[in-house]
Amino acid sequence: MTIDLQRSTQNLTHEEIFEAHEGGKLSISSTRPLRDMRDLSLAYTPGVAQVCEAIKEDPEVARTHTGIGNTVAVISDGTAVLGLGDIGPQASLPVMEGKAQLFSSFAGLKAIPIVLDVHDVDALVETIAAIAPSFGAINLEDISAPRCFEVERRLIERLDIPVMHDDQHGTAVVILAALRNSLKLLDRKIEDLKIVISGAGAAGVAAVDMLTNAGATDIVVLDSRGIIHDSREDLSPVKDALAEKTNPRGISGGINEAFTGADLFIGVSGGNIGEDALKLMAPQPILFTLANPTPEIDPELSQKYGAIVATGRSDLPNQINNVLAFPGIFAGALAAKAKKITPEMKLAAAEAIADIAAEDLEVGRIVPTALDPRVAPAVKAAVQAVAEAQNA
Amino acid sequence: MTIDLQRSTQNLTHEEIFEAHEGGKLSISSTRPLRDMRDLSLAYTPGVAQVCEAIKEDPEVARTHTGIGNTVAVISDGTAVLGLGDIGPQASLPVMEGKAQLFSSFAGLKAIPIVLDVHDVDALVETIAAIAPSFGAINLEDISAPRCFEVERRLIERLDIPVMHDDQHGTAVVILAALRNSLKLLDRKIEDLKIVISGAGAAGVAAVDMLTNAGATDIVVLDSRGIIHDSREDLSPVKDALAEKTNPRGISGGINEAFTGADLFIGVSGGNIGEDALKLMAPQPILFTLANPTPEIDPELSQKYGAIVATGRSDLPNQINNVLAFPGIFAGALAAKAKKITPEMKLAAAEAIADIAAEDLEVGRIVPTALDPRVAPAVKAAVQAVAEAQNA
Repeated sequence: MTIDLQRSTQNLTHEEIFEAHEGGKLSISSTRPLRDMRDLSLAYTPGVAQVCEAIKEDPEVARTHTGIGNTVAVISDGTAVLGLGDIGPQASLPVMEGKAQLFSSFAGLKAIPIVLDVHDVDALVETIAAIAPSFGAINLEDISAPRCFEVERRLIERLDIPVMHDDQHGTAVVILAALRNSLKLLDRKIEDLKIVISGAGAAGVAAVDMLTNAGATDIVVLDSRGIIHDSREDLSPVKDALAEKTNPRGISGGINEAFTGADLFIGVSGGNIGEDALKLMAPQPILFTLANPTPEIDPELSQKYGAIVATGRSDLPNQINNVLAFPGIFAGALAAKAKKITPEMKLAAAEAIADIAAEDLEVGRIVPTALDPRVAPAVKAAVQAVAEAQNA
Repeated sequence: MTIDLQRSTQNLTHEEIFEAHEGGKLSISSTRPLRDMRDLSLAYTPGVAQVCEAIKEDPEVARTHTGIGNTVAVISDGTAVLGLGDIGPQASLPVMEGKAQLFSSFAGLKAIPIVLDVHDVDALVETIAAIAPSFGAINLEDISAPRCFEVERRLIERLDIPVMHDDQHGTAVVILAALRNSLKLLDRKIEDLKIVISGAGAAGVAAVDMLTNAGATDIVVLDSRGIIHDSREDLSPVKDALAEKTNPRGISGGINEAFTGADLFIGVSGGNIGEDALKLMAPQPILFTLANPTPEIDPELSQKYGAIVATGRSDLPNQINNVLAFPGIFAGALAAKAKKITPEMKLAAAEAIADIAAEDLEVGRIVPTALDPRVAPAVKAAVQAVAEAQNA
């Protein structure tokens, strides 16, 4: 099989891309026409004062009679944007606008891009908490690790609206969905898998939690210095916590040691894994090579060795695209008026995504395509049901 | 003339008002359809990366290829909302959404309501500066005096985008427009007027500056304790500055002393001025009684004594409504890519508003009605021309 790595991008011209961005990618307008003084009096003074007073008396009225019940902020400080890295807040705005388009197009949510000109954890937390009453939920985006972990944790503790860093959990949810269907096809169980995750950043850390919550028992995480284990002395607090949660066999070393006998590889870091490592894996391994645009394993090698292969690319089969997760997760959390997004809500999202692909499951179709219109409503319903049952 | 103070509101039912707010008053959606992977690739990954990189290289690209070139944040901390006072951020959100509707409906701008859960000056400045890269301009709204003055001043100094507290300057611009046409009708000059302003809050302070910039020479300001003069020892820094700029005759006392011989009264404070004070004014006074819904002077008394009367109410002639000013001011500043809104830009806005009403000037029609579709484009053009000439 010959794979053209450039297919999805080769015919996108610079002109077309810039045309698609001209004037911005979001429109914001009044839901009701302001035709006469009566319209103005209903929407603005004096009528609006009655709604203000009602909210003052009962804050729940804000959920139904302002936009917040249906509004997600897409917030970034521009430090970990796509493969571009730390490009600053304003240069990240096109990505946040694009994300807002996805929220709107896939889940009918109103999403507001907010980019922040502060970067330390305290300032990020204080700024986001200060603006939080403007929104019904907060999608953190493209904030670099390890700051993203503490920012998310502190905001979840502090605010009574859902906060989720999508680079962590959106990706992890879709990974789990893809894994569920892979195991179904291969008739294996998550409990029995030896799993290797390359990357201890946002997606890697969240994938460990997600897979553990789903029953995984043997995960080994690689960072740029090799296998994370508890006798390493160079570990950050986040990686220290990873060392406690993972590597039950207590192995050390590098790629080869990690890959020996492994059933599943999840790459969320970039880098390059060669054929030697693949030969060390257990028979019929599952390969999720999610770096974009260049997967950690050459796609032709993945095809040769992998029983099932997924990537982050839209031009290859089995794209792990978090657009399958975040619109429905936020829509479900908002519909349930949830105060947080719990692990169980994320597990339910993964199940819902997997179930849709399971309707016509094939090795080359373990997740729905990014544009499948069935996905967001199904995820929303599943997440809302769990949130309501948990009173989350 | 019998005036029914309740006319504009008496037939607004609670049900209609709440229906007009259900689900919020703004819609936010994608400007372009996302129908297929090609659309996604243009608007989001991988195409978006080219736009991010272009902005990183040249920040001006953000003005044309994100929404900010056309986007105003409407920001409040909910401390001075309508006549309701300090009702908190979330209860003020319906007002900010309403303001955003006006920006959209009158000037085609995208406006984003942001309400803040912080209130001290430092925190307000830091929070707003942190989120500023998300917007092209900032409309501060309903922030109580005296904090509003310092917050606005520090943000104007710090940011290179237009920042304007509309409760100050929007109102002052429309007051000046109304005054221009009043003077034309009465064949008087602003230099010759004895002016009394009741209220040393946001609108009062801005009106002093605006009228002084327009040529006024004799302004006396009243606060709740009487005439502001430089030997009073109870003055805040803001009022100290007012004492220096106003009261050239050095008078002291209360309403009666201020009104004696006055040609123009501007009420921006509420309170109640009786007939005795009106009798002390110069012949044929101009009365702008802007407290809403209850003007400082009973409308029937105003009609009896005033040569020209304006109020803040939509059900009476000559409504001083800042919707005449702010949509066009921000649209003009954004079109000119101005870094600030200068006094000259505000004077040009007042002229443009006055000019439209001057086309068929009458004592009962000194300003255009709030819904006059000619106003915002004329204000925009006037403000843009001055901004470009000033390279503001």
